[in-house]
Amino acid sequence: MTLANRSLITTDDLSNAEMEALFSLADRMSHAMDEQLGLCRGKIMASLFFEPSTRTRLSFETAMHRLGGSVITAADVGATSLAKGESIADMAKVVGSYVDIIVIRHPWEGAAKVVADYAGVPVINAGDGGHQHPTQTLCDLYTIRKEKRTIRGLNIALWGDLKYGRTIHSLIFALAKFGANILFCPTPGLEVPQHIIEKLTTEYGGEIAREEALTPMVKDGLFPVDAIYVTPSRPHQLAMMPGVNIKVELKRGIDALYVTRPQKERFTAAEQREELTKKYRVVDKKLLKGKAFQETVVMHPLPRVDELAHELDADPRSKYFEQAAQGVPVRMALISLLLGVTQVSVPAEDTSRKVDYPLYQQAVGPKCPNPRCVSVQETEAKYLKPEFKIVNREPLTLRCNYCEHGFEPKYVASAEWHEGRTATKTYHPAASRWAKRIKPENLIAFHSAEEAEAHGFKPSRDVKALQEES
Amino acid sequence: MTLANRSLITTDDLSNAEMEALFSLADRMSHAMDEQLGLCRGKIMASLFFEPSTRTRLSFETAMHRLGGSVITAADVGATSLAKGESIADMAKVVGSYVDIIVIRHPWEGAAKVVADYAGVPVINAGDGGHQHPTQTLCDLYTIRKEKRTIRGLNIALWGDLKYGRTIHSLIFALAKFGANILFCPTPGLEVPQHIIEKLTTEYGGEIAREEALTPMVKDGLFPVDAIYVTPSRPHQLAMMPGVNIKVELKRGIDALYVTRPQKERFTAAEQREELTKKYRVVDKKLLKGKAFQETVVMHPLPRVDELAHELDADPRSKYFEQAAQGVPVRMALISLLLGVTQVSVPAEDTSRKVDYPLYQQAVGPKCPNPRCVSVQETEAKYLKPEFKIVNREPLTLRCNYCEHGFEPKYVASAEWHEGRTATKTYHPAASRWAKRIKPENLIAFHSAEEAEAHGFKPSRDVKALQEES
Amino acid sequence: MTLANRSLITTDDLSNAEMEALFSLADRMSHAMDEQLGLCRGKIMASLFFEPSTRTRLSFETAMHRLGGSVITAADVGATSLAKGESIADMAKVVGSYVDIIVIRHPWEGAAKVVADYAGVPVINAGDGGHQHPTQTLCDLYTIRKEKRTIRGLNIALWGDLKYGRTIHSLIFALAKFGANILFCPTPGLEVPQHIIEKLTTEYGGEIAREEALTPMVKDGLFPVDAIYVTPSRPHQLAMMPGVNIKVELKRGIDALYVTRPQKERFTAAEQREELTKKYRVVDKKLLKGKAFQETVVMHPLPRVDELAHELDADPRSKYFEQAAQGVPVRMALISLLLGVTQVSVPAEDTSRKVDYPLYQQAVGPKCPNPRCVSVQETEAKYLKPEFKIVNREPLTLRCNYCEHGFEPKYVASAEWHEGRTATKTYHPAASRWAKRIKPENLIAFHSAEEAEAHGFKPSRDVKALQEES
Repeated sequence: MTLANRSLITTDDLSNAEMEALFSLADRMSHAMDEQLGLCRGKIMASLFFEPSTRTRLSFETAMHRLGGSVITAADVGATSLAKGESIADMAKVVGSYVDIIVIRHPWEGAAKVVADYAGVPVINAGDGGHQHPTQTLCDLYTIRKEKRTIRGLNIALWGDLKYGRTIHSLIFALAKFGANILFCPTPGLEVPQHIIEKLTTEYGGEIAREEALTPMVKDGLFPVDAIYVTPSRPHQLAMMPGVNIKVELKRGIDALYVTRPQKERFTAAEQREELTKKYRVVDKKLLKGKAFQETVVMHPLPRVDELAHELDADPRSKYFEQAAQGVPVRMALISLLLGVTQVSVPAEDTSRKVDYPLYQQAVGPKCPNPRCVSVQETEAKYLKPEFKIVNREPLTLRCNYCEHGFEPKYVASAEWHEGRTATKTYHPAASRWAKRIKPENLIAFHSAEEAEAHGFKPSRDVKALQEES
Repeated sequence: MTLANRSLITTDDLSNAEMEALFSLADRMSHAMDEQLGLCRGKIMASLFFEPSTRTRLSFETAMHRLGGSVITAADVGATSLAKGESIADMAKVVGSYVDIIVIRHPWEGAAKVVADYAGVPVINAGDGGHQHPTQTLCDLYTIRKEKRTIRGLNIALWGDLKYGRTIHSLIFALAKFGANILFCPTPGLEVPQHIIEKLTTEYGGEIAREEALTPMVKDGLFPVDAIYVTPSRPHQLAMMPGVNIKVELKRGIDALYVTRPQKERFTAAEQREELTKKYRVVDKKLLKGKAFQETVVMHPLPRVDELAHELDADPRSKYFEQAAQGVPVRMALISLLLGVTQVSVPAEDTSRKVDYPLYQQAVGPKCPNPRCVSVQETEAKYLKPEFKIVNREPLTLRCNYCEHGFEPKYVASAEWHEGRTATKTYHPAASRWAKRIKPENLIAFHSAEEAEAHGFKPSRDVKALQEES
Repeated sequence: MTLANRSLITTDDLSNAEMEALFSLADRMSHAMDEQLGLCRGKIMASLFFEPSTRTRLSFETAMHRLGGSVITAADVGATSLAKGESIADMAKVVGSYVDIIVIRHPWEGAAKVVADYAGVPVINAGDGGHQHPTQTLCDLYTIRKEKRTIRGLNIALWGDLKYGRTIHSLIFALAKFGANILFCPTPGLEVPQHIIEKLTTEYGGEIAREEALTPMVKDGLFPVDAIYVTPSRPHQLAMMPGVNIKVELKRGIDALYVTRPQKERFTAAEQREELTKKYRVVDKKLLKGKAFQETVVMHPLPRVDELAHELDADPRSKYFEQAAQGVPVRMALISLLLGVTQVSVPAEDTSRKVDYPLYQQAVGPKCPNPRCVSVQETEAKYLKPEFKIVNREPLTLRCNYCEHGFEPKYVASAEWHEGRTATKTYHPAASRWAKRIKPENLIAFHSAEEAEAHGFKPSRDVKALQEES
């Protein structure tokens, strides 16, 4: 199997088996850094950073150099061609015609997908706004796997700011995919968003136990945990009582503690006033002296500020600098696979789950409500058609194909029913019985009555009833 | 013949035959990108951008990497050594002692020539203010030649902002040199400057037909044309009536349509108030559905904003992304020729025209009146001697050797007549009968009477008469 | 002998013999630039510039490319990860895990030492605030040696701003180490700081003759000299009368004139008001027409502004552009030595002097009073332990191991005397008889009485007497 000519935009773009194959390649490469030198000779990587990031950029560029390739860099793009009003698609086509592979960081969510759609060469997402940062997740998983030999069935605790930070969100789904239990240990006020919890249970199976259920256990020598996601990957336990199950799982202690920096720059004004960072509990030697932490791998995506005490740097459990260092072999493996200069074999039966949602197929439809989504930016909306998956019917929920934000349109219509006859162009509340009868391929959705009527649709009786109610 | 150790500052630095040889080399290189890898091994290019430009910079750097060379980049130079008051000449000497070739973009007009004068290594002008951007012109010509096999005798339409933009100005002269007909289709208010029209007819021969003469023909199915430059390269037609001639030429339709972005950033305040961009006619499918456009190559130097509809991207006539992509092989060919690692053979009889104007040779003389000219900048004027060509005697017109701006000095004197005797140090109106009798090597010119008198010259009777008049 | 895996933070990090070996290697490399190409194949250099500097950065990067290595660059780091509050040590660990060698420029004094302490790979200081810029000094010495074949016994004049500028300070000590005589020719108000004069005589031997003594000689055809440092490297002359000695030394004329730019950006407000740059005497042909300058090598670290006339550029004595050019082979030699890809032999008996001062060893102690010292910055003080050398006992003087600033603490105590008993925790004036009796390993120093008392120390009788006095 080849990964050549594919792009990595979200962690879903690689199956578990493909990730495992990539990790094995990274292992081999890290043992003989210098021998890889000629692999990418003559290949050129464009390193396009529309947001500042020294660490990630240097890691990618180091990886390409270690493979013997060349790099062209734009670390200051914000101020240049984009300022002239050029679209991302145009930029992607031009740079894609120069180089063999593109690494892109951009503040707009979904921007990396647009680059991949237009560049004509493999594209790696190095962070697109608050959306995804999949190579960080690869490094995280690689570090856990290197230290614990597997990810399946491990107890991984996530610490600190679980609300903001693409790193944490990408990691949660990847851990679920690999069958780990996840302990959520947020700083109060920075809990993991509800939509992520929902996606976890609906798409990845497993169960969530909330703080209330945990309190007695947590008092048994563990530390403040807000909720636990118990993986379904150990099916024999699913029959047990949740409490008992969790107790069994936790008895082994915490396999990895993933500490995060408060993403202050994304805090709301209210959150800044609350001084949430003062509530941040520092991870230090004292915290880690309990029995549950004896075998814990301490991780951090870096940069750290104060949340992880310097005294831990010399602790053998601390692996955050190794985690950063492993960014190079992991990215070397990824680049060489996407460029097709290395092949890996992936077992035929790939057990990783991928939900196939129906696509929203009508030309008329809503815009993505996320203001940071690439599809609603002035320069991009000219040519980008909004694209959605229909991820739920009750309540009707669309997910943007660019930024992956989900939203619930208020009104619907069917493309089948009216077939050009204006008389039958009627729209209905999304929660009405009519809505459920519309086939996915015919579904038309609207954010508002105004939007529906602007497209020539008339309110159904249910709509009028609804409007009178409110 | 070798191009080694030469610089490319303006399109005049290469003869037609040399450009043709360069294009043939670019053809060969583009067919085997990877095989060029070792050509520039061990050579280093400095990529010095004193103005932001991602696209051009990345194209040059890609070209050097494809040739196997190395690149050092300064993409942010504005804020650094220059801020300490260093001259361009000093910078050029130092960087020239490090590397094998220099690519420079600078906001001051003529700056690339100064770098070439002092660096001691080949220098490529990647844009010096509003003056020149010769490698863009090479890419433009290469694209036309690739699509149409020749440039001679083609009908090339230039669309949009023909007033600002070094790209258009360079291209006009290059097209004239290669014997193409040029159709000027400006956005109203952004017509091509008069001095360019004049240079076209005086230096390149050919004739200009204005809108009035064209109107009936244009109505015959063509589109709004402001003026047409008819090349003298088809001598048998020169004898014909201009109108008939043009009709014959245009019958074949438009071979290439070169669309440009409104250079808003250079608009005057008045032009901005006029909202000229609203008058910009968008090039779209509808415009191109006429018979004259059946075989038209649609071009654009990019970045585009709204002037070229996205719907054309999939049209087989659209070649603007190929045009950008060809920047790499064209620049590869150029770099390898200037570095002397590749040789090309150029036919002995080179038909391209080059006018040899007499040089202004006196130490006393005027400053260039262009405030963006490198020769009048505070840090540069200390060591740069103004240099001019005498491009016309009636009216007396000097052209700056740095920025190529032309101007008409008001007064003159002769170095021969006074020969150190103050009594005979007299100055005359530039338009007087005396002025015409001064030999070029003795000509002294002044912007004003004050300037002449500051150098110890006394007004002639003609000067006094002139001053009394006004 | 190998220099592999060592760092170059200050000029003291290399002995004279090691520098000589490096210069010989640079000679060999400069004669066959291209043949070095494969030496560093597969090695990666990180070029981290937290302050703008095009020239030095490009010189280092050129050197690495000439050796066949790769470079990753962060020329804009100020605005990125550091802005998130990361410590230099963390950054050093991460980048050190990516690459083989680090070049760092940073505004904080001592920052390069911190990088070297944590990176785990060789580190080269490319300028840390006003502290050091050792590779500039290597280039300076290399240029002198190339022109004059030796440095020992030469007369080197330093011209202009001798007060600010790490370049001058590093050079002074290096010249003293190599046994040159130094003529100080400052612009009035920009004399060399007194602490440098003191270090010169106490650590390097030799004698200083002040202007008063020089005046008659200087009038004998020399130029304004403020002071002369006469090297002890010619021991037979030490016995002579200073005046006679100096006369003999100067008879030969000036071997090198090292001109510097006024470091306006570091002037105090008062110095700016005084318009010291107007007092700057320009070095031009007229100045250099005297007999003493017949064989003078004219040098300048560049960039220059007005202090060195352009008319000298063509003078055969001018070597400042060669000096800049030699930055490449010198840095090539340095990089290849620190990476261990080249070995040099250094004579066993290395005559270069290195003073071994006792270290300050107590945990309690003063902070470095230099506000630009890396050890007192908010992000760094968390993990950096202050470190000092005890460079003098009368008056007690500590020198910071990071920024090398010296200071005189006002109070002292002994760790030996109190041994945990609070009753005997007494502090004394630094100038008292008790102070002198404290062994270096027991010395505790304080900036102020408050500081001593905050640590639980009580004033001695001498302290009280002192306080009553004032």
